[in-house]
Amino acid sequence: MARVVLIVGSKSDAPAAKPAIDTLQRFDVDCQAHVCSAHRAPERLAKLVKQAEAEGTQVFIAGAGMAAALPGAVAGLTRRPVVGLPIASGALSGVDALLAISQMPPGIPVGTVAINGAANAAWLALEILALHDPRLDEQLATYRREQSERVDQFE
Amino acid sequence: MARVVLIVGSKSDAPAAKPAIDTLQRFDVDCQAHVCSAHRAPERLAKLVKQAEAEGTQVFIAGAGMAAALPGAVAGLTRRPVVGLPIASGALSGVDALLAISQMPPGIPVGTVAINGAANAAWLALEILALHDPRLDEQLATYRREQSERVDQFE
Amino acid sequence: MARVVLIVGSKSDAPAAKPAIDTLQRFDVDCQAHVCSAHRAPERLAKLVKQAEAEGTQVFIAGAGMAAALPGAVAGLTRRPVVGLPIASGALSGVDALLAISQMPPGIPVGTVAINGAANAAWLALEILALHDPRLDEQLATYRREQSERVDQFE
Amino acid sequence: MARVVLIVGSKSDAPAAKPAIDTLQRFDVDCQAHVCSAHRAPERLAKLVKQAEAEGTQVFIAGAGMAAALPGAVAGLTRRPVVGLPIASGALSGVDALLAISQMPPGIPVGTVAINGAANAAWLALEILALHDPRLDEQLATYRREQSERVDQFE
Amino acid sequence: MARVVLIVGSKSDAPAAKPAIDTLQRFDVDCQAHVCSAHRAPERLAKLVKQAEAEGTQVFIAGAGMAAALPGAVAGLTRRPVVGLPIASGALSGVDALLAISQMPPGIPVGTVAINGAANAAWLALEILALHDPRLDEQLATYRREQSERVDQFE
Amino acid sequence: MARVVLIVGSKSDAPAAKPAIDTLQRFDVDCQAHVCSAHRAPERLAKLVKQAEAEGTQVFIAGAGMAAALPGAVAGLTRRPVVGLPIASGALSGVDALLAISQMPPGIPVGTVAINGAANAAWLALEILALHDPRLDEQLATYRREQSERVDQFE
Amino acid sequence: MARVVLIVGSKSDAPAAKPAIDTLQRFDVDCQAHVCSAHRAPERLAKLVKQAEAEGTQVFIAGAGMAAALPGAVAGLTRRPVVGLPIASGALSGVDALLAISQMPPGIPVGTVAINGAANAAWLALEILALHDPRLDEQLATYRREQSERVDQFE
Amino acid sequence: MARVVLIVGSKSDAPAAKPAIDTLQRFDVDCQAHVCSAHRAPERLAKLVKQAEAEGTQVFIAGAGMAAALPGAVAGLTRRPVVGLPIASGALSGVDALLAISQMPPGIPVGTVAINGAANAAWLALEILALHDPRLDEQLATYRREQSERVDQFE
Repeated sequence: MARVVLIVGSKSDAPAAKPAIDTLQRFDVDCQAHVCSAHRAPERLAKLVKQAEAEGTQVFIAGAGMAAALPGAVAGLTRRPVVGLPIASGALSGVDALLAISQMPPGIPVGTVAINGAANAAWLALEILALHDPRLDEQLATYRREQSERVDQFE
Repeated sequence: MARVVLIVGSKSDAPAAKPAIDTLQRFDVDCQAHVCSAHRAPERLAKLVKQAEAEGTQVFIAGAGMAAALPGAVAGLTRRPVVGLPIASGALSGVDALLAISQMPPGIPVGTVAINGAANAAWLALEILALHDPRLDEQLATYRREQSERVDQFE
Repeated sequence: MARVVLIVGSKSDAPAAKPAIDTLQRFDVDCQAHVCSAHRAPERLAKLVKQAEAEGTQVFIAGAGMAAALPGAVAGLTRRPVVGLPIASGALSGVDALLAISQMPPGIPVGTVAINGAANAAWLALEILALHDPRLDEQLATYRREQSERVDQFE
Repeated sequence: MARVVLIVGSKSDAPAAKPAIDTLQRFDVDCQAHVCSAHRAPERLAKLVKQAEAEGTQVFIAGAGMAAALPGAVAGLTRRPVVGLPIASGALSGVDALLAISQMPPGIPVGTVAINGAANAAWLALEILALHDPRLDEQLATYRREQSERVDQFE
Repeated sequence: MARVVLIVGSKSDAPAAKPAIDTLQRFDVDCQAHVCSAHRAPERLAKLVKQAEAEGTQVFIAGAGMAAALPGAVAGLTRRPVVGLPIASGALSGVDALLAISQMPPGIPVGTVAINGAANAAWLALEILALHDPRLDEQLATYRREQSERVDQFE
Repeated sequence: MARVVLIVGSKSDAPAAKPAIDTLQRFDVDCQAHVCSAHRAPERLAKLVKQAEAEGTQVFIAGAGMAAALPGAVAGLTRRPVVGLPIASGALSGVDALLAISQMPPGIPVGTVAINGAANAAWLALEILALHDPRLDEQLATYRREQSERVDQFE
Repeated sequence: MARVVLIVGSKSDAPAAKPAIDTLQRFDVDCQAHVCSAHRAPERLAKLVKQAEAEGTQVFIAGAGMAAALPGAVAGLTRRPVVGLPIASGALSGVDALLAISQMPPGIPVGTVAINGAANAAWLALEILALHDPRLDEQLATYRREQSERVDQFE
Repeated sequence: MARVVLIVGSKSDAPAAKPAIDTLQRFDVDCQAHVCSAHRAPERLAKLVKQAEAEGTQVFIAGAGMAAALPGAVAGLTRRPVVGLPIASGALSGVDALLAISQMPPGIPVGTVAINGAANAAWLALEILALHDPRLDEQLATYRREQSERVDQFE
């Protein structure tokens, strides 16, 4: 099982979540990506999350739009850190997803990133993994240094 | 098992959901009320909903606040009609709950009522039950007639 | 008269409500669709709703945008269950319609679905009808099972 | 019948609408105030509005909270000017009422004032009446002059 | 001077206000349309409004977007009825304009219509004028009757 | 005339604006405070602002609530910098005022501070004045240094 | 240095952040709590965060209200995971803080919890620490089990 | 160093900020424009702002989108006036940026202009500079006069 498991609630959410996979791959962190709805397939979701936890997955990224129950559902199924990714879909530009993901009750935390902020979902996962992965930690340090030194021209 | 099962996500949501029970009792419709969090006890919730469905429950009312996943979770566990009740709690006055309950994906419907609109959750359940309960249907007709004839003075 | 009557407030709302008809037809549930504004033709609306109720319509679906009074007006005219469908039109992406439909006063319930969630309006109607239609209930059970077993690839 | 008819959707809305009556009385404009819900008593509302129009009422003020259908319903029943008054009640501080009253479809206008802006509902009615009431027009001119000359100390 | 004076705050607001003129012309009501910003040309605005009032203008329609001060400014300059038209421009889809126009302080009323609801701004003006214009009143009655009798097919 | 002129739209806004005066006084910057509504007394406002500009006022602070036209109106009357202060009043907690003050059209700028952020309105005025007031500039530098060195205990 | 460092932007934010400390203490996880504003003391903040990172702090919790820049500022200063806690203060009930904390640009992630969700900020930190702390992991597992088995009575 | 320094948080924000430069150039006010993220390069930002302040920059304009920390960060680094420019980017149309920029804590002011209101950011800077630049003050006076005299045709 991969160190990071990424789940989105619907096939149509996959493109918005793709930058998370790209970011993880850039640092050679293995990631399994699934489409599994908390509403349509709650039992399959439970099985998927519990099996991943059992096999050593360390961080879950869960992305969903609208009444985005998936990240909270994943968080309710595992005690591994869950990063929640609100996806803009439907009429409300992701405000509904942002609230449905971030406003969790005490005891079942989800660390929410920006609407459509898939890259940051991966960055947060990387930071968590790097706590006990010196090579990755060094890579993040290098990346941060480059970012801080990069000078963009205004135009 | 009762014809109507009411579930709230947290003990603190019970007072806001109470008017639903009062309204059902007024028409002698039996109702079981439970506290069961979709996030903290997903397996117990699944068992509760599936058992109720198996034993003949006809309508579920699910009330929750904030990242209100409960109504959608119940709807994902049963094909009986689910009435969703957004409850105002936390900093956002129930707007978060309203969106988290109403913005469901296709195939798993929740019929959402007003924020803190517990009485209407019961009224909708009553209307559904009355479709095949002539006595209740007559009671609703009487109630509606009285409502339409009631004249309130402005002050 | 059909078991389900669908009414939208304006001709321009018809495309957004179309998926409700498609979903009902998929299960061979007869549906009559009307355009009738609560604001422009209140008397015709009253006649339409009362006649449908009298002839046995069991569920009403009412869709409207902006100051979406139609679902509440229908609910005020019948004691049959009313499913409210907020439609995104005008400058506010349907937030106005969502609030105007869901925030009903006690006694006149509307079960609101997502903005532009026409399919779910039909799904909720189907679930209500299935309570006393074993064939439909079996179809819904089959559909749910297929949904829960369908596995989508991430990409 | 009074020149101005004020209707609120619920007895609990009366206090918020009271300043409208006070403002009208200050200028000796007769006003009838009613409690009549668009949702609970649509037929009585229709009768009330049509009778008032027939007997010469010139301006309607309609106040309501939440899914505030009343002003639009009144506007659909008469071709006399309707002033809509959103009332803050329930969890959303009147934002729901503001949108449900102001976002009317073409052909059925409502002139909306501020949330809980009952005095201004009356002021707008007075301005409309003053177009053909020289005495009232003179009173308004005097009032405006006094307002513009009143100098308040900062503290 | 025309019976109705329409003012928008910026040349770019003219297209959104155009339906008001079209609606007035349909009933042969004369209307003068101006571009005059409350912020950029407050003195010219004062002169324009005061002259129109002096020459007999009976209703003002004022349309603006964003920090839409124009309708309130016009209302502060005249005691004739002012209809406020919020126009969607800039990043906020007209929500800013809706609030800036509707949330007026007591004593200076503006009757606000929907965002981009220019036609209704004219309809409200027509209803006000019709109070003392029997021919126009008859035309409005005819229009309303036709509207209520028009039956649109769903598709 | 004072270097800073503070104007609020209504007597009830004075308490929310008071911290601006306190902050200015702390640095011995003279300030005149007025109550003058843009809607109720536009001519007196014009006279007040133009006279202040003529007599050397360098910064205006304008505070208002709801459809907060005052700051923009002041900005339209002077080419001196205007700081806009949204004040929370009425049902919408100052969101209406924030939008009505900040969303100004090009050419007439208002520098908006936080809702009820009266102290910052003064701080911004002080920073502007300090550009050509070495003593004040030194005082601000000292204050900033103290702020950055102040260490608060968590509890 | 503690494994978890908690920083709030202002002394007035401390009470809202307190449940995070309580939750960490319940599991004997050491935590240092600081008050340090990103706006008023950016250099002291930089020193604090960099020193903590150097001395082995593994998770930062940063809580702030209004224009809540602190969590993002901390995230920009360290590559350790940062949990952002929006605190309801001022007129907007924490919506401003929620957006200012969650809507981070790519590369600098903040895992945001609910408005005033201090306990969950700690829970997320605990889950991260538990990845390499078997004793803590066992404690979390026990806690989760107890939660899922706890049955609350409705009333 | 230029009298005005403009900083945006990301290269993608440059086009939205460009009108500020154009407006400053129109009045021959020198301006330096930089891309420097408060999150990605806090040390470079600190150096840039402090050097500019030391070399005589009189006004800073800082533009950013989403969790727009840049304007507040600049304000925390200098006691020169800072004009904050919210830029619409991401899913929320700039509402997030507007709140993240305007809702500053006491002592660190930012004068916020409209979402995407780059021109007004420059206008406010020009007004500040004109306080001690008679030639520029005269230019502004001329511009204002022309604006107030410009008469646009409605169509």
